[in-house]
Amino acid sequence: MSEHHVVVVGGGFGGLQLANDLKGAGVRITLVDRRNHHLFQPLLYQVATTILSTSDIAWPIRHLYSDRPDVTTVLGEVVGIDTAAREVALRGGMTLRYDSLVLATGATHAYFGRDDWEPVAPGLKTLEDATTIRRRILLAFERAEIETDPAMRDALLTFTIVGAGPTGVELAGIIVELARNTLPREFRNIDTRKTRVVLVEAGPRVLPTFAEELSAYAGKALGELGVELHTGERVLECTPAGVETSNGVIPSRTIVWAAGIQASPAAKWLDVPADRAGRVIVEKDLTAPGFPDVFVVGDTASVIQESGAPVPGIAPAAKQQGAYAAKVIRARLAAKPSPAPFRYRHQGSLATIGQSAAIIDFGRIKLKGWIAWWIWGIAHIYFLIGTRSRFAVAWSWLWIYLSGQHSARLITQKETMRDDNRT
Amino acid sequence: MSEHHVVVVGGGFGGLQLANDLKGAGVRITLVDRRNHHLFQPLLYQVATTILSTSDIAWPIRHLYSDRPDVTTVLGEVVGIDTAAREVALRGGMTLRYDSLVLATGATHAYFGRDDWEPVAPGLKTLEDATTIRRRILLAFERAEIETDPAMRDALLTFTIVGAGPTGVELAGIIVELARNTLPREFRNIDTRKTRVVLVEAGPRVLPTFAEELSAYAGKALGELGVELHTGERVLECTPAGVETSNGVIPSRTIVWAAGIQASPAAKWLDVPADRAGRVIVEKDLTAPGFPDVFVVGDTASVIQESGAPVPGIAPAAKQQGAYAAKVIRARLAAKPSPAPFRYRHQGSLATIGQSAAIIDFGRIKLKGWIAWWIWGIAHIYFLIGTRSRFAVAWSWLWIYLSGQHSARLITQKETMRDDNRT
Repeated sequence: MSEHHVVVVGGGFGGLQLANDLKGAGVRITLVDRRNHHLFQPLLYQVATTILSTSDIAWPIRHLYSDRPDVTTVLGEVVGIDTAAREVALRGGMTLRYDSLVLATGATHAYFGRDDWEPVAPGLKTLEDATTIRRRILLAFERAEIETDPAMRDALLTFTIVGAGPTGVELAGIIVELARNTLPREFRNIDTRKTRVVLVEAGPRVLPTFAEELSAYAGKALGELGVELHTGERVLECTPAGVETSNGVIPSRTIVWAAGIQASPAAKWLDVPADRAGRVIVEKDLTAPGFPDVFVVGDTASVIQESGAPVPGIAPAAKQQGAYAAKVIRARLAAKPSPAPFRYRHQGSLATIGQSAAIIDFGRIKLKGWIAWWIWGIAHIYFLIGTRSRFAVAWSWLWIYLSGQHSARLITQKETMRDDNRT
Repeated sequence: MSEHHVVVVGGGFGGLQLANDLKGAGVRITLVDRRNHHLFQPLLYQVATTILSTSDIAWPIRHLYSDRPDVTTVLGEVVGIDTAAREVALRGGMTLRYDSLVLATGATHAYFGRDDWEPVAPGLKTLEDATTIRRRILLAFERAEIETDPAMRDALLTFTIVGAGPTGVELAGIIVELARNTLPREFRNIDTRKTRVVLVEAGPRVLPTFAEELSAYAGKALGELGVELHTGERVLECTPAGVETSNGVIPSRTIVWAAGIQASPAAKWLDVPADRAGRVIVEKDLTAPGFPDVFVVGDTASVIQESGAPVPGIAPAAKQQGAYAAKVIRARLAAKPSPAPFRYRHQGSLATIGQSAAIIDFGRIKLKGWIAWWIWGIAHIYFLIGTRSRFAVAWSWLWIYLSGQHSARLITQKETMRDDNRT
């Protein structure tokens, strides 16, 4: 037990990459997460839109390390850090003493000071968020089917997505396809093809982090699918009845929030400076200022590139940071000089529009249309963990391609859970 | 709209069989269920024990009838029936006028007057029940891993199942296999192979509805798997700390209730006599006494066979009753004489013990062991709805067979749903 003890908080892309890269480094690792699973967030919108099941894109963290006796997995919630005693405190009273600490605690969605919007406009970060959004989408169609008031029926058949980043664009594309291709034959009183899917974006264009030509292509492709684009419109109010924007009111019973980000409270635990989104402003070696044994990686860290642009909050960036922190820890243990400062290598940006088009921005090379969609699909299957998930996701997509039917269309976790109307 | 209107309440095995058999009968059908899905309950225990995902064994009801314009699906909850006006009242104020009414509303578990036990000893009837039980099983291992008090750790690693019918036996078999085969390599502080799985049964033997020799074989097979059998023990009390039986106290932090059945309130809606479990005592043509246009089928109906034994509450019985009610409705519409009174044909009883043994009682032919397991498996895949589910379930079982790994091991729907400790 006199080995160097690395405590990793957060089993996302950054935390797992670090634990993987410390294999054989002669350290003892304790990996703490509030959830028992690692989540492949890039495909979470497909769980929310009835394409994939939760178990297709999430894996028990402790299972991933079953062949790593040096890794102990703890299901627990961090409530504070005592940097003087080098101790992490978990809810329930357990403490973990560390030699090196890695905070990879991620981020959640932010409402720009209007957290009261969350109940009517849920965001998409966890499996529960995804099943909540799925339930609301499916229930809206169910309620529209038995609604007699035409105005209410229209509001039930209007889905508003706030924020036209990749998540917003991906959600809008699948919802409109669900309404136009999958559902029409199943309802008797409503025509689901008349469903409105409204994408509200305060900026001037969709997918603002992509090159303008790709962004324009994505906007056009969304329009052809049937998504209403409301760019340049700020959201002023979200209520159960709809969204009020700077351009008027959209009566809409289902709202999904895909704008804004708020880092986990790592900066507060350490009492160090943070940026506006709460991210720790880290040193060049990804340690927290004043705490050379505390690394902060992924969405919890604010890292500015030489170009002046921030490192984006995407999976490859978190992985690179996790790998870098592992390299620093290894160098220190070997008493070697520190590696060169962390430098982010951008490998490209991807986004899909529905089930047949995508855009990919590799910098010099830009792709769009079905070829981009295939590259996107293959890349995502490749990055899934384990043969079983790759197979399951590929099968789900193939099934939709062949049959047009989404398979994960269950409404679960309703308030009333007893006295089932079934045999 | 002057067509004969059949209102079917409940999209379980009985309700669906009836709707299927009324295809082309020239009637208009409205199918009401509180859930949006039909559930294949015989495999629900595999969702609870991390083998299958929810979407493997449930299908949106309206999707099953997408090619039946005569069937309208309504997501709704029945709150009362006005037999004079021939109207079914749904929560929210909607009413459905019927010419024929079919109540196929099923049953839930019963606590013999001790409903206060439900929070600590959940039963298994719905998808939510299954995810609740799965979460509790997985969390018990997680908590044991970080527990320092040996007595508490032992109680966390003790799982008690009340009731040794098919569900109880199936749950016990899989939980013990999970603990002994799947989990051991993933924990560092506990030995999951020392997990106790206790099966408590008030009667003298497990699977009391099977022939004695099969019951004895099942008991022996359970013992070999590592299940502790406590037959002839009545449960006196269930608390968060454990179960008190007529033979002593079992400290146990996870309890699953697999005993007792309570029919849905159909008898109260109709104000007709019911048996002890609340089942409507139906006429020989499965109509409710005094209401020839109201059929009651499946677990909601009490039907006594010529032998004096009640028709069992299993899927084939519900299907036969649904088919019979459809035949009566067709005969009436054609002004033909009523069919002969309903007669239940028992096709056999099946139960599995873990992932390699099963028993099948065809009456004269009795099977046990791996051959029974294969027949059980093929029969269940055959009865699943749709190519996709058959494939998904077969694949899950094959995967477990090849890799020993259960794939559906996610803990979801915790109380704390925000601020994920992940990147």
